[in-house]
Formats: sequence, C-alpha cells, structure tokens
Amino acid sequence: MSLTQGFVDEFERLLQWRRDVRHFASEPISDELVEHLLDLACLAPSVGNSQPWRFVSVDEARHRSAVVANFSAANAHALQGYEGERAERYANLKLAGLGEAPRQFAVFCDEDTSQGHGLGSRTMPEMLRYSTALAVHTLWLAARAHDIGVGWVSIIDPERMADDLDVPRRWKLVAYLCLGRSLDESTVPELERVGWQARSSACRQVIYR
Amino acid sequence: MSLTQGFVDEFERLLQWRRDVRHFASEPISDELVEHLLDLACLAPSVGNSQPWRFVSVDEARHRSAVVANFSAANAHALQGYEGERAERYANLKLAGLGEAPRQFAVFCDEDTSQGHGLGSRTMPEMLRYSTALAVHTLWLAARAHDIGVGWVSIIDPERMADDLDVPRRWKLVAYLCLGRSLDESTVPELERVGWQARSSACRQVIYR
Repeated sequence: MSLTQGFVDEFERLLQWRRDVRHFASEPISDELVEHLLDLACLAPSVGNSQPWRFVSVDEARHRSAVVANFSAANAHALQGYEGERAERYANLKLAGLGEAPRQFAVFCDEDTSQGHGLGSRTMPEMLRYSTALAVHTLWLAARAHDIGVGWVSIIDPERMADDLDVPRRWKLVAYLCLGRSLDESTVPELERVGWQARSSACRQVIYR
Repeated sequence: MSLTQGFVDEFERLLQWRRDVRHFASEPISDELVEHLLDLACLAPSVGNSQPWRFVSVDEARHRSAVVANFSAANAHALQGYEGERAERYANLKLAGLGEAPRQFAVFCDEDTSQGHGLGSRTMPEMLRYSTALAVHTLWLAARAHDIGVGWVSIIDPERMADDLDVPRRWKLVAYLCLGRSLDESTVPELERVGWQARSSACRQVIYR
C-alpha cells in the first residue's frame, strides 16, 4: 500500500487535533455514521485476533441518569483527594459531556471469549483489555476523521456501571464514551489550557539498552 | 479542522491494512524516521494527560538475546496449553519477527508518574496502562502511514523483561514492539490466512440499553 505525502501530513494533523472532547453540540449523529464508525473500530488489532470488545449503546433515560450518578459520585470522591488550590482547580474542571453528547457507549472487554483460543494472552492476560482500548482508540480517530468528537470518561466506578447496564458478569468495563459534534477545535489539550498542568517531556525520553 | 473525503477513504484503507507484522525486511530504518514516529506516538491521548508511556530501545546483542530467550520460554509454555491439531497449528505459527526486525522497543507504563496529578485514574487505575496501549497504537498507525510495519509481541514474561532491561521498579511492561519494513502486504490477518480462526462477528453486535 502506498500513501501520498499529502495523506501522511493530514494524518499527522488528525493525531494532533484529535482531543478528548467534553464540549458537545447536542445535534444527533446519523445511525448510518455510527454504524460505520463501529465497523471501523472492529478493524483494531487484537491479541490472537480475539476481538474482545463489546459495545453497549446507552440510550434510555434511566441508564443515562445512572451514568451521571455514577460519574458524580466518583468525581466527588476524587475531589476529596485534592487540597487547597489543586482542589479548587479540580472542582472547576469540566470533565465530561454526559449531559450533551447525543450518543454514548460503554465499551466492555469480554474476558470469557474463546475467540483467539488464548493466543498471546497467557503470560499477559491484560492483552484482552489492551485490545479493547485499541478498538476505542480506532473509533476515536475514525470519528474525528468524520468530524465527530469523542470523550473518554474514566471517572466512573466500573463495576457499578456493569451492574447498572446488566451485562454478562465477565465483561469488564474499559471505557465510557461520549460522541457528538465537538465545540472544541483546539490542538492544545483542555487540561493544559486551563492550567491543570503543562505537557511533560519525560514521556519522550527514550532509554537505550 | 476539515478533512477531505479522499483523506477519509485513505485513512480507512490504512486501518484495514495495518496488520500485526511478523515478517520483516532487515534493512534499517533511519534514526530520523524513528524519532519522528516517537514524536507522533506522544500525541496519543492519556488519562489526565499523564503521558505515562516510556520507550526503551532494545539494541544491544545481549538484550536482544534475552528477549528471544524470554519469548521462546513463554511460547514453549503456551504450546503446552494446546492439544492435538490445535497444538500442531500453534507450533507452526510464526508469532514474532524478533530475529529480523531492525528496531525493537519495549514500552512501559510508569505507574509512579505524578504527571496528571492522578486525574481520571482514581476509580480506574488501569487507565495509565490503557493510555500506554494507545501510544503503542498511535505509533503503529503512524509507522504504517510511513510504510513501516509493527508487530506487538505479547508472548513474553513481562516481569522478566523489566528485570532484564533493568528499568525502574514501577515501570510495567505493556508491549514489546518489532519495527521494520513489512514483507506482508495482505489486508487479511495472518492468523485468519493460516487457519487459526476466522474473524468473529460477535464483536460487532451492539447491545442497546
């Protein structure tokens, strides 16, 4: 497969511009586009080709309310972990777009899947969850390419969510996703813009062995 | 940001064509390109913008040998978990390109990082490792856009590798990556082509709640 330099340049812009979105327009996304994005997510790599991701579309009002309650409790608990100015900053952060995002998905890892016959996850069983995270990331980038923003909400009690959504017991929550048109077009992470922290260069220090 | 339909089409082809590569040409990759790919990997999303990924370039012959020994032991152990025809098939799989891939990276998650101030990982501490997996996936897609193949080797004892590479104690191995020009240009996963299994449609069944 050959890709043009023009493609590569645009792809790199996509990576820079992806963002974790918390400000959504409430206008709906077409079902056709959502289905297409899920098809693309399923192209993600997975250990032993196990495809352990399971998507739960959260639509009913009672389930949306349960998610908001879950988030609110986890967020209040998290706030207690900060003090002084840091706590004040935390309290002022907008950390999710649960009230506005028109489509929301809970993404689970099916740890009971026989698909893949266990290949590649014997010494690293966490590979199934990593594979699920990669499907989330694939969905995220694909959504952005189609001008849809994604926010990954992790301030959540994962077991409570699995209970609330009544999924099989061996499904483990990996991500809760908000999807919608983004009202945020910056290439700078919001946490950096609002002074939570600057980006670090530590991650970029390669060690040679 | 607006992207053209031509870009979107090519991006979707990239997702289809990415592959987990186990057949590499041994020709070197320029240091400049490797540095560029690492810069792109650092554009990955991370919980609280914690950027917990740490890249270790594995180059010395003694370290490459240790990785091969680690893989061989884990692979022999995994083979014991299969019986009959499945064991025969497993034994015939080529599951890594450790002998050929010119550049190899162990990717760790620094679970001690203060970057991000713990935001978003209180109820889901595994978010740090998921973020590291997302950096791996970003590197993977970026490499493919630049015509470099990537193979993620997980048939590895992660603690033994951390010991062998002598990294800080709180760094947890997430991935071992082989990079090089791919000798495999198929859009069909190798595990499917060699009859390990067909792809599943279970992953694509959306549940509505």
